Amino acid sequence: MTIALYPGSFDPGTNGHIDIAIRAAALFDKLFVAVYDTPSKQLLFNTKERVDLFEKAVAHIPNIKVIPYTGLTVDFARKVGAKVIVRGLRMSSDFEREFEMALMNKKVAPDIEVVCLMANLEFQFLSSSLLKEVGSLGGVISTLVPKHIEEALRKKFSSTRKQ
Amino acid sequence: MTIALYPGSFDPGTNGHIDIAIRAAALFDKLFVAVYDTPSKQLLFNTKERVDLFEKAVAHIPNIKVIPYTGLTVDFARKVGAKVIVRGLRMSSDFEREFEMALMNKKVAPDIEVVCLMANLEFQFLSSSLLKEVGSLGGVISTLVPKHIEEALRKKFSSTRKQ
Amino acid sequence: MTIALYPGSFDPGTNGHIDIAIRAAALFDKLFVAVYDTPSKQLLFNTKERVDLFEKAVAHIPNIKVIPYTGLTVDFARKVGAKVIVRGLRMSSDFEREFEMALMNKKVAPDIEVVCLMANLEFQFLSSSLLKEVGSLGGVISTLVPKHIEEALRKKFSSTRKQ
Amino acid sequence: MTIALYPGSFDPGTNGHIDIAIRAAALFDKLFVAVYDTPSKQLLFNTKERVDLFEKAVAHIPNIKVIPYTGLTVDFARKVGAKVIVRGLRMSSDFEREFEMALMNKKVAPDIEVVCLMANLEFQFLSSSLLKEVGSLGGVISTLVPKHIEEALRKKFSSTRKQ
Amino acid sequence: MTIALYPGSFDPGTNGHIDIAIRAAALFDKLFVAVYDTPSKQLLFNTKERVDLFEKAVAHIPNIKVIPYTGLTVDFARKVGAKVIVRGLRMSSDFEREFEMALMNKKVAPDIEVVCLMANLEFQFLSSSLLKEVGSLGGVISTLVPKHIEEALRKKFSSTRKQ
Amino acid sequence: MTIALYPGSFDPGTNGHIDIAIRAAALFDKLFVAVYDTPSKQLLFNTKERVDLFEKAVAHIPNIKVIPYTGLTVDFARKVGAKVIVRGLRMSSDFEREFEMALMNKKVAPDIEVVCLMANLEFQFLSSSLLKEVGSLGGVISTLVPKHIEEALRKKFSSTRKQ
Repeated sequence: MTIALYPGSFDPGTNGHIDIAIRAAALFDKLFVAVYDTPSKQLLFNTKERVDLFEKAVAHIPNIKVIPYTGLTVDFARKVGAKVIVRGLRMSSDFEREFEMALMNKKVAPDIEVVCLMANLEFQFLSSSLLKEVGSLGGVISTLVPKHIEEALRKKFSSTRKQ
Repeated sequence: MTIALYPGSFDPGTNGHIDIAIRAAALFDKLFVAVYDTPSKQLLFNTKERVDLFEKAVAHIPNIKVIPYTGLTVDFARKVGAKVIVRGLRMSSDFEREFEMALMNKKVAPDIEVVCLMANLEFQFLSSSLLKEVGSLGGVISTLVPKHIEEALRKKFSSTRKQ
Repeated sequence: MTIALYPGSFDPGTNGHIDIAIRAAALFDKLFVAVYDTPSKQLLFNTKERVDLFEKAVAHIPNIKVIPYTGLTVDFARKVGAKVIVRGLRMSSDFEREFEMALMNKKVAPDIEVVCLMANLEFQFLSSSLLKEVGSLGGVISTLVPKHIEEALRKKFSSTRKQ
Repeated sequence: MTIALYPGSFDPGTNGHIDIAIRAAALFDKLFVAVYDTPSKQLLFNTKERVDLFEKAVAHIPNIKVIPYTGLTVDFARKVGAKVIVRGLRMSSDFEREFEMALMNKKVAPDIEVVCLMANLEFQFLSSSLLKEVGSLGGVISTLVPKHIEEALRKKFSSTRKQ
Repeated sequence: MTIALYPGSFDPGTNGHIDIAIRAAALFDKLFVAVYDTPSKQLLFNTKERVDLFEKAVAHIPNIKVIPYTGLTVDFARKVGAKVIVRGLRMSSDFEREFEMALMNKKVAPDIEVVCLMANLEFQFLSSSLLKEVGSLGGVISTLVPKHIEEALRKKFSSTRKQ
Repeated sequence: MTIALYPGSFDPGTNGHIDIAIRAAALFDKLFVAVYDTPSKQLLFNTKERVDLFEKAVAHIPNIKVIPYTGLTVDFARKVGAKVIVRGLRMSSDFEREFEMALMNKKVAPDIEVVCLMANLEFQFLSSSLLKEVGSLGGVISTLVPKHIEEALRKKFSSTRKQ
């Protein structure tokens, strides 16, 4: 049985992230979507919110489980028995950073494989940061995230504006 | 009549930005240089200063008007009747970010066209941030900005140092 | 009146090229699609075929004219009175080559402006060479070119296979 | 059971290609190494030689099978029942070309997944073309290919020189 | 006598930086490793610590001297009589930024030459920031820095965690 | 005494190549400009012509010598006692290829150092191939090459056209 881990901050998960998770779940026996648990002030949603929003979006896929994690990604992968780390690549990815991380992972955990899936065309230019920028300025984001994440974003932006 | 919009933070406008504005004004009937109005603490000049510095640099071009704006760039473009957004590209541009924005714009405003001009050779490696870095350390910047912007920078840097 | 020139080898024109031509024609008063007239053995269609195929695809746009040309692009631009050269950019463009050409043009013809339009999302990963590769191997290309160009490609590939 | 396909021209397979094949074979139930069967004059080895050289290098891995193929890669993947196409990425990969192919594949065969593995550090800068260039000029290549491929290269180069 | 300057923040120097310094010292008569003296809150070590850690790592190379500096790099180069500035390049370098700085330097100090050395393979994917990220999460870093720098990092991380 | 080697095909040497050679000669005690001796049909000038054209351009620099070579560059470097190989980088360089070669060199000849100089701004977008393309089409090239190379190009192009 091959277990895979799809790590990220997912602040929030977009249709692009969700698509990668579902495609990865079709390739491996079990997929953990691992939400990095960090109290960073630069994130819009807290860890519990980010886990819940992603969980709801993939609730219909039986072999996906969304969980928070801290520490080195490879250490967490070992803890849950994953021998594969999944990454989604977009043309606008920072490939150098991806290689740095993959090769650093290989150095500290040669037993764990990094596997990359390429984002589908409609998600090539969708990032969490651009999504939040457009959404915070009142732009249409209904084609970029599921309905419940769109609503969570609207709520977050309106409360921010009131402050 | 084709109206174009050249948006940016212009903190401050450099000889490179001014060159793009003048070349764009030669292609279209009217050009709005739109200065993003943001109270960011990371900017050196406030919005009014950034508008005034750019305005003075292009005062001799009759069909350019410099104005502040907020919100989504495409929304502002529609408000002033612009069907073209102008971007200046340098070799050292973040092309991925440019494409992300252009394609996101296309999604939320398919009626507005993004048009790119390439920076001339002498401005290929000139950015506002490098300009400020060199200027703040006492380097020569007289060939990179007009005289009145050089003076505004000197004044800003000397007041910063006194603090 | 602003005349623009959209040069290329267009072997053959794809839906991506046609989209750029139509968008450029909406920005300028007249657009010449200039097909580079070269007897290269690496091209699939001869110059007349390439002109005719593109012409038929844009026949409904009154201010576009498709013509063959030879020599330096900037020289030809001057001959037809164009002060703008249009280029279509895709994420997978060779940006360095684009800058080399634009800056070389600027050096030999400072009066002519290079203006870039970004390919729409659905054409981001469509190139003439990939199109021909997929088509020659029997892949589906009906969403990548107009019907009459698809037929011309099919005819060309079947005659090639017979040889 | 998940079957994967690792396609390439492998002229010849290097230690980098062999490493990718072995790592992919550990992730999936069966791996076909598919050698593109083309009579190109630009290749050093013919199809049979390329298949045999790779076959010998992975003979000890029971779930790898090396076979020649022609036509569209996705069509061949379907024929052998593979739902995964494996690609090896190096920092010096042409990522744009990789994306073009992956997205074109997705368009003509949405049921097939492209999965990328990143080359290990010691193979990051090893390509078949550089290998052949260095080998043909008498450079040391014993750390870049298995012994039997090194010998095949030496034989090929010495016969070429005699001509 | 050719004097060279190798500037950086070195927070801390890695095996990659130390390798570049030693290789540069073999090419030129004297090498100053110049540690940028900045009170930035984003750095882990203060200037004195960064100088001392690097100094200890190259103590066995007679023609290297490690010193702090402020202001424009080219101004400091002139002050110590250096006509060469050394930069280490990795595949994952920001080449555009490197060119911007080199060309800006050329503009303000045409008499000073920027010379680039390429990182060796084992240091290609090693950066100070990735080192600190991995180290702070408890990953193994003993192959990435000398023993005394590893210990300094451990001490720093454990004191940070206690806060 | 440090001897350096600046290898290339130089078909022909441009003002950019000549500038790199002169700057490198100022850094090292002796510089060999090594012209790759290949009977390629894709080159415009034969090896003797390429050596002579470059020689004439740097005749006033006493420590530069222009010579033809064949075989591995590192082998030739050793033969002439050079411990440094000089490369000129432009923004539009193929950095991946540069790294591949540098790291391959390091593998087969760890004693030889590759040193890169960055092209000056005015030569950033000048390549031999673009030069020949513009020159062959009758464009102005007098600012891109020395007078005697411009004349050699004119002669070559006019004889080609007559054929």
